[in-house]
Amino acid sequence: MKDWEKNVRTVVPYVPGEQPKEKNIMKLNTNENPYPPAPGVAEVLETFDADRLRLYPDPLAADLTDALADFYHVDRNQVFAGVGSDDVLAMIFLTFFNSRKPVLFPDITYSFYDVWAEMLRIPYEQIPLDHDFFIIPEDYKKENGGIIFPNPNAPTGRLMELSQIEEIIQANPGVMVVVDEAYIDFGGVSALPLVDRYDNVIVVQTFSKSRSMAGSRIGYAISNPCVIKYLNDVKYSFNSYTMDSVTIALGVAAVKDKEYFEKTVQKIIQTREWTKEQLRALGFLFADSQSNFIFARHPKVPGPQLFQALKEEKIFVRRFGKPERIADYLRITIGTDEQMQKLVKFLKTYLMEQET
Amino acid sequence: MKDWEKNVRTVVPYVPGEQPKEKNIMKLNTNENPYPPAPGVAEVLETFDADRLRLYPDPLAADLTDALADFYHVDRNQVFAGVGSDDVLAMIFLTFFNSRKPVLFPDITYSFYDVWAEMLRIPYEQIPLDHDFFIIPEDYKKENGGIIFPNPNAPTGRLMELSQIEEIIQANPGVMVVVDEAYIDFGGVSALPLVDRYDNVIVVQTFSKSRSMAGSRIGYAISNPCVIKYLNDVKYSFNSYTMDSVTIALGVAAVKDKEYFEKTVQKIIQTREWTKEQLRALGFLFADSQSNFIFARHPKVPGPQLFQALKEEKIFVRRFGKPERIADYLRITIGTDEQMQKLVKFLKTYLMEQET
Repeated sequence: MKDWEKNVRTVVPYVPGEQPKEKNIMKLNTNENPYPPAPGVAEVLETFDADRLRLYPDPLAADLTDALADFYHVDRNQVFAGVGSDDVLAMIFLTFFNSRKPVLFPDITYSFYDVWAEMLRIPYEQIPLDHDFFIIPEDYKKENGGIIFPNPNAPTGRLMELSQIEEIIQANPGVMVVVDEAYIDFGGVSALPLVDRYDNVIVVQTFSKSRSMAGSRIGYAISNPCVIKYLNDVKYSFNSYTMDSVTIALGVAAVKDKEYFEKTVQKIIQTREWTKEQLRALGFLFADSQSNFIFARHPKVPGPQLFQALKEEKIFVRRFGKPERIADYLRITIGTDEQMQKLVKFLKTYLMEQET
Repeated sequence: MKDWEKNVRTVVPYVPGEQPKEKNIMKLNTNENPYPPAPGVAEVLETFDADRLRLYPDPLAADLTDALADFYHVDRNQVFAGVGSDDVLAMIFLTFFNSRKPVLFPDITYSFYDVWAEMLRIPYEQIPLDHDFFIIPEDYKKENGGIIFPNPNAPTGRLMELSQIEEIIQANPGVMVVVDEAYIDFGGVSALPLVDRYDNVIVVQTFSKSRSMAGSRIGYAISNPCVIKYLNDVKYSFNSYTMDSVTIALGVAAVKDKEYFEKTVQKIIQTREWTKEQLRALGFLFADSQSNFIFARHPKVPGPQLFQALKEEKIFVRRFGKPERIADYLRITIGTDEQMQKLVKFLKTYLMEQET
């Protein structure tokens, strides 16, 4: 060990889902949208004046926060934009979880939460989901330094009732409660109205799933202006210009096309419901998902084996392995109808082969 | 104060230079390049397939780090890319300045250093420049938790000899020494060769100045593979996908056009040298700048007054105010020949009016 290594913040980093370079694979492993972004996005790319790039972008990304404010009927000073919801969530951990009491989140959840907490040396406690993968509001009524959970939860897909979220917020007026709604557009009810009723709530959403723009890195938080001001202050102490000019313009084009957004989201919901029926018929077990993925296991085939069989068929899904009780589960992203038909067809054949 | 505000990390944020919305202004306040990015950048924008945006980008931004590795004749695992050099520097503060001893940097320097230190609760000491705005290597030979300085320094424009930088590195084998080379292409000699000779050096550069891409937010660090690995681990604990797909492709196009890069940089150097002569003739005092700006004061006109007069003429420059000994200085970005002629013409007339 070199002397300078004593000053290094060593961490166990988050491991994102594989981004295979191969063509001709069916990529159902990182919950990407199978449809292209709104047509206006392509238009902005074609017509964007490259000369503008010599100038710094608007550090507030006001065009984007304005477009989001319009879409969600809130004030522009209630919106914070960042480089994907991971950037937004990292800023939230840094800004609002500055406490010696543990931050609470589920034991089975987005696997970045404990990474942020570890990296920022924030104490935390992982609260077990119940045996059906439900979050129990009662468990979040103990002393803590903040609360965060996805709704629907990932990777389970389980949706929580708004009344239960409100119960958690009401029980915790002294800390920030963060509702991570990466998948909310696929059938959930957003906690956005609660932002008006409680001053300690932040709702976080992303362009990566329902808006087909994972490649653009756009996430946002909505809360009251005071919370957004605290968040902007920390952002301005970290990196003033996070959103590049092209991405701001692309994001605006996407938000403005509400019709396309609703159409593609509805299509994915339909495909998901069809896929659920098929998987159920094949004997798969899964929590009822309200997201763009299904978290399922088959009682007769271990998770690692099925994962490998799919990979050999060039179908990439995601498997977490930890904790033990999800070791047999695969998280399967909802793709196009054609992709899901192909998946189901392969599973049918594969499971039949296992029986014989 | 609300209860949840007790857990808030309160900070005094960095204040970036103004990005005025008005047209018809001469923007010489944030050291942007007056020339457009390389022509290949516009081509990539026009031809980029929007459908790719539905997929996550390559978290390593390998196309970009490969292009940079080629350009600088280093290995790809020696390059780290981020959302502007501010993102890269924030990650470096987080990763390598994890010590209870003070990080050292000049008292007059990039005004984000103390903001990062304050935000991350890192102790620091600001070492005074000498009366001619030079960094004195001898002053950096005391116990510390890390060292960072820009070369050329900002906002003074003063370049340090490579031998002096080496002297600082040699005296501090137990900590990381970061050379922030945002302006190095405008006449300085990069510390890059020192990365091969010492294991505790990081060189940071940006696309915002010499590559005309402030709007794209691209910065990078070059060091040995071990240092880059530590940096990537922390980055993967903060935000895995920081570089969006479009920006990666635009950055690659810019790096590949070495000829255009060299041509525009040379042009700015010529314009700067012409501007120096003119300002000198008008009685301005300034340190000899090797960057794309000149940090100057006029002995007969207070800084705030001149700043205001220029602003009324729609010429935006930058003034820092603090510390006291730079209160009369203005930092003037080098624009096109036409812009500099207009600036000089106005200053000539204005100074004559003051005399009478």
